[in-house]
Amino acid sequence: MKQAIHQLTIETRGQGLTDITAPACRFVAAQGVATGLLTLWCRHTSASLTVQENADPTVRADIGRYFETLAPEDPGRYAHDDEGPDDMPAHLRTMLTQTSLSVPVVDGRLVLGAWQAIYLFEHRRQPHRRDITLHLIGE
Amino acid sequence: MKQAIHQLTIETRGQGLTDITAPACRFVAAQGVATGLLTLWCRHTSASLTVQENADPTVRADIGRYFETLAPEDPGRYAHDDEGPDDMPAHLRTMLTQTSLSVPVVDGRLVLGAWQAIYLFEHRRQPHRRDITLHLIGE
Amino acid sequence: MKQAIHQLTIETRGQGLTDITAPACRFVAAQGVATGLLTLWCRHTSASLTVQENADPTVRADIGRYFETLAPEDPGRYAHDDEGPDDMPAHLRTMLTQTSLSVPVVDGRLVLGAWQAIYLFEHRRQPHRRDITLHLIGE
Repeated sequence: MKQAIHQLTIETRGQGLTDITAPACRFVAAQGVATGLLTLWCRHTSASLTVQENADPTVRADIGRYFETLAPEDPGRYAHDDEGPDDMPAHLRTMLTQTSLSVPVVDGRLVLGAWQAIYLFEHRRQPHRRDITLHLIGE
Repeated sequence: MKQAIHQLTIETRGQGLTDITAPACRFVAAQGVATGLLTLWCRHTSASLTVQENADPTVRADIGRYFETLAPEDPGRYAHDDEGPDDMPAHLRTMLTQTSLSVPVVDGRLVLGAWQAIYLFEHRRQPHRRDITLHLIGE
Repeated sequence: MKQAIHQLTIETRGQGLTDITAPACRFVAAQGVATGLLTLWCRHTSASLTVQENADPTVRADIGRYFETLAPEDPGRYAHDDEGPDDMPAHLRTMLTQTSLSVPVVDGRLVLGAWQAIYLFEHRRQPHRRDITLHLIGE
């Protein structure tokens, strides 16, 4: 049984989804593990992880609009606004999605379904550098 | 330390919760692992996993109605409707619940609380065949 | 490769967030594991786990108010109210946050970001005793 760690750094362009499936798959492939478990951890409280459809780009636009409504910017609503009106909604959108994901590895590959991609979900308006830690255990 | 993989296939009857605790427990019991970690991965973007109360069936009815309101069908609202008005709400309800769950195993059993059950949450109106990958590591 | 299990018991004071980062870190430090994976499992369906900012206490107040709106108490709305009007909202708020979290361990420490803390999120009005199982694997 072996383990491996990888730090993935993503430069986001502001709010929206960045597909991180390819670098996650490359890391797994490079370790030569046939069966195992990959865990992704997003090291932020205003960006998160989610699994969504990778085919139709309108899905990602609909997701963005939906979360703008679900946890809206609203200057009078939140006590915490140190970093602006998108600060507290970013924390809430993070809570409603994922900070960690664990994906089994079978035959050397992540068991993603045909339409699944792993996304980093940036919740701040400005571009940010985001760190995701990958942990693999298996053999 | 050993690992085991199992593919669980569930035929859903359309929107709602299917209890998958029993097959998950059977898989764990069959591996002879005393201490370990079970991970469940749902291989879809319009069905998800959740942990909820297993006692009162009205909880599951309330959950269904709540998610119909939280991420509603609304033909004019979403750009993505290739598969009908329940397509995009299914993606959103998936994002708001879980694609992966990891449950410790102690004394050969999942450490579920007295009222906890693990459910597959189908978000499409039509019945679907859904695949969940189980990964166990332990000894 | 080794594993360790710890039962963490938290006495909550009713609705709100309790920081459980310190006891989780102490458990990891005591195991002498350099690289590994810590999984936390909340054994309840009316309390959950979340990762949020640990700096500004107004964040936690905003989170409380937000979830009161997102999954409100509303006596006429839910069929399930055996334990009172906060019963069903507690289940829904649990579903919208996390029951399990898995955090990589690198150089003997959890890879939490600078602003990240792990919280137990109590959703019932009354104080409760809550059990969280910690599972560590690594070496």
